[in-house]
Amino acid sequence: MTNAIILGGSRGIGKAISDALKKIEINVFTASKNDIDTSDLKSVKEFIKNHNQTDILILNTGGPAPKQFFSITEEDWKLYHNQLFLGFCTILQNIKINDGGYIFLISSNVIKEPNPKLIISSAYRAAFSEVFKILSKDYAQKNISCINIAPGPINTDRTRELIKNVKEYEKTLPMKRLGEPEEIGNFVKSIIENKIKYLTGVTINFDGANSNYIF
Amino acid sequence: MTNAIILGGSRGIGKAISDALKKIEINVFTASKNDIDTSDLKSVKEFIKNHNQTDILILNTGGPAPKQFFSITEEDWKLYHNQLFLGFCTILQNIKINDGGYIFLISSNVIKEPNPKLIISSAYRAAFSEVFKILSKDYAQKNISCINIAPGPINTDRTRELIKNVKEYEKTLPMKRLGEPEEIGNFVKSIIENKIKYLTGVTINFDGANSNYIF
Amino acid sequence: MTNAIILGGSRGIGKAISDALKKIEINVFTASKNDIDTSDLKSVKEFIKNHNQTDILILNTGGPAPKQFFSITEEDWKLYHNQLFLGFCTILQNIKINDGGYIFLISSNVIKEPNPKLIISSAYRAAFSEVFKILSKDYAQKNISCINIAPGPINTDRTRELIKNVKEYEKTLPMKRLGEPEEIGNFVKSIIENKIKYLTGVTINFDGANSNYIF
Amino acid sequence: MTNAIILGGSRGIGKAISDALKKIEINVFTASKNDIDTSDLKSVKEFIKNHNQTDILILNTGGPAPKQFFSITEEDWKLYHNQLFLGFCTILQNIKINDGGYIFLISSNVIKEPNPKLIISSAYRAAFSEVFKILSKDYAQKNISCINIAPGPINTDRTRELIKNVKEYEKTLPMKRLGEPEEIGNFVKSIIENKIKYLTGVTINFDGANSNYIF
Repeated sequence: MTNAIILGGSRGIGKAISDALKKIEINVFTASKNDIDTSDLKSVKEFIKNHNQTDILILNTGGPAPKQFFSITEEDWKLYHNQLFLGFCTILQNIKINDGGYIFLISSNVIKEPNPKLIISSAYRAAFSEVFKILSKDYAQKNISCINIAPGPINTDRTRELIKNVKEYEKTLPMKRLGEPEEIGNFVKSIIENKIKYLTGVTINFDGANSNYIF
Repeated sequence: MTNAIILGGSRGIGKAISDALKKIEINVFTASKNDIDTSDLKSVKEFIKNHNQTDILILNTGGPAPKQFFSITEEDWKLYHNQLFLGFCTILQNIKINDGGYIFLISSNVIKEPNPKLIISSAYRAAFSEVFKILSKDYAQKNISCINIAPGPINTDRTRELIKNVKEYEKTLPMKRLGEPEEIGNFVKSIIENKIKYLTGVTINFDGANSNYIF
Repeated sequence: MTNAIILGGSRGIGKAISDALKKIEINVFTASKNDIDTSDLKSVKEFIKNHNQTDILILNTGGPAPKQFFSITEEDWKLYHNQLFLGFCTILQNIKINDGGYIFLISSNVIKEPNPKLIISSAYRAAFSEVFKILSKDYAQKNISCINIAPGPINTDRTRELIKNVKEYEKTLPMKRLGEPEEIGNFVKSIIENKIKYLTGVTINFDGANSNYIF
Repeated sequence: MTNAIILGGSRGIGKAISDALKKIEINVFTASKNDIDTSDLKSVKEFIKNHNQTDILILNTGGPAPKQFFSITEEDWKLYHNQLFLGFCTILQNIKINDGGYIFLISSNVIKEPNPKLIISSAYRAAFSEVFKILSKDYAQKNISCINIAPGPINTDRTRELIKNVKEYEKTLPMKRLGEPEEIGNFVKSIIENKIKYLTGVTINFDGANSNYIF
């Protein structure tokens, strides 16, 4: 039986991945913030005591509320350094991924085209993407695939908090709509289901043609 | 019934995509070099007379033999300008993609990390990737997804021509093996099968963690 | 005495580089379109007969008028393939750059963030940037530096043709102004003047913080 | 009189920039680790009390000793989070840059092509590069230029610590040598000296054609 741990699985993209993986022969542990709060290293350490290995790991967590650079406090930086970076590092240092497994990172398209309102998220998600890229080469030797999905505007509670008038916003998007969490959920499922392994060490924009950078 | 046209479908990655799509409810036209030779604009124009619309289009073609910059002739440049760039532009100008369709471009990871032996391929595949990126925003308005797959070392005849000692080469790769064409075939199939549409305007390295660039 | 050849030197950025280099101990040949028309390979071949070596080479040429993808003709593609790509390749295949020299390519920031109105320019300038990157490693062995400058909106005739209301446009830019050709001219001059050689194999956005991509 | 503050100015690249700027009409404050230790936020806060504004700021600091991912401790992460990221953020939040000024960040080419031995540096320098990119658009409105220089192998004590056999290593480099700190020093000087302002929001590889990524 294949086991999966999904962080931030109680809503949004995490929940959609959880729902999708439950449709195939996978034993899914859907972690909510009660199970593990990546902004709190104690909580992370407690979690990894009870979950020290898995076949599939989904690294996923929400981001901070929008804040301009000059109003970000030292406490803000440190909190989100834990939540978006150090918690994930600690997890990868301690949870063994079984050979032939998968690690999916749900980051954000702000890592490529940083957003002034999401400066904390742009910074720390990029930092962890560097770590994840480096580790993908090591994990490859154990046939473990590392896939960094960088979503653009997805139809989640989070997006509705960030965007005031979603209807108006959607008109400005190339696809004239937000992405659906289920599209990402099904994408993750289909890679696992089809045993696609060579797709690794990669960052995949999932943003409905919204980004402008060539790659 | 959904229709697909697959260029360069008689072998390698093209054939794998063709085989994969035949497993789902798709009416696949697998074009060989006899049907359309993208290096010959007359052949392209003849082809588009008989194939002026489709739901799914796979833009795929082989590359030139390795050649150092100073030995490339004007004829070489012009031939591969047709094959890797202008033929594809002509196709997109003339074949209507039906609303809700898909266009997959099979390019190469040399577009991001150019290869001195594959200088022609690096140049013209990058050029067409620029066109494809721009068009993805227009196609998005018709719910057509544009996905640029940039393969690394895949187990094809082409790779075996380029690499002398494949066994030795494989030892240098992070995954210790070439990618299988079927992995790309199944990847394409699963996107279509799962109706994943928001994955568009994107270039996806498919290279077994072989590239070094962060994104 | 150090010799320089500057293509497209009669106006805009080319002229600014020419003016700047004349201020230091350099023997500048400022080529106008009458001397060499890179869209015409015969003209290129004639030019290289008389200019078969130099210390400093500035690859610079104007781009096409804006045109939407579906209205670009085969003749357009071929003309600008010559002008923006093949002419430059032919030049590098035939003009010897003396050891310790410099090659500057004036491309455009559309190579990183392609522009639908400048689709031809985005494609072929990217293609040549691939060639230039590859060659930079060879040239490095002869202590020749290859620097790709990718300008954003610069105060040239060209920009005033592309942008209807320059005053309004400037208000949308981070610096609230176009860049001045002299800034690029002085930049090129100062690199040569200070014998900075390790800056090579690099693409440098010169766009007043206008681009959004992280790198 | 123009004032400059140079962090990490007692050796290597910092010292070379300091030496270069002293040759022009600039009042240079060369900060050593005794003046400000960016890994210690108390030290940073003390420093900014006495240096609350400048015209030119050079953000420069050494990186950690090489360490594999699985041996990095929580203390390591937190120390270098301060040194490479949070110290710099605190400085930019508190030191006013005068209108028309310059901020140079000396990062590393590992931000684009991350290095497994320099994983901490790859991560946090990338994170700060995101912040710096975002801020460049704000600073542009005050005619302040933000230039991120990403050096490759430069002839510093640091490089000699990282590389065992420098002579052998140099043979593997395109230019067959390390870069000289003076090349970066003179580069910075010449931008300031020539009042080049439109070069901003940019990351400049300074690596002797060593990197492989196209841009």
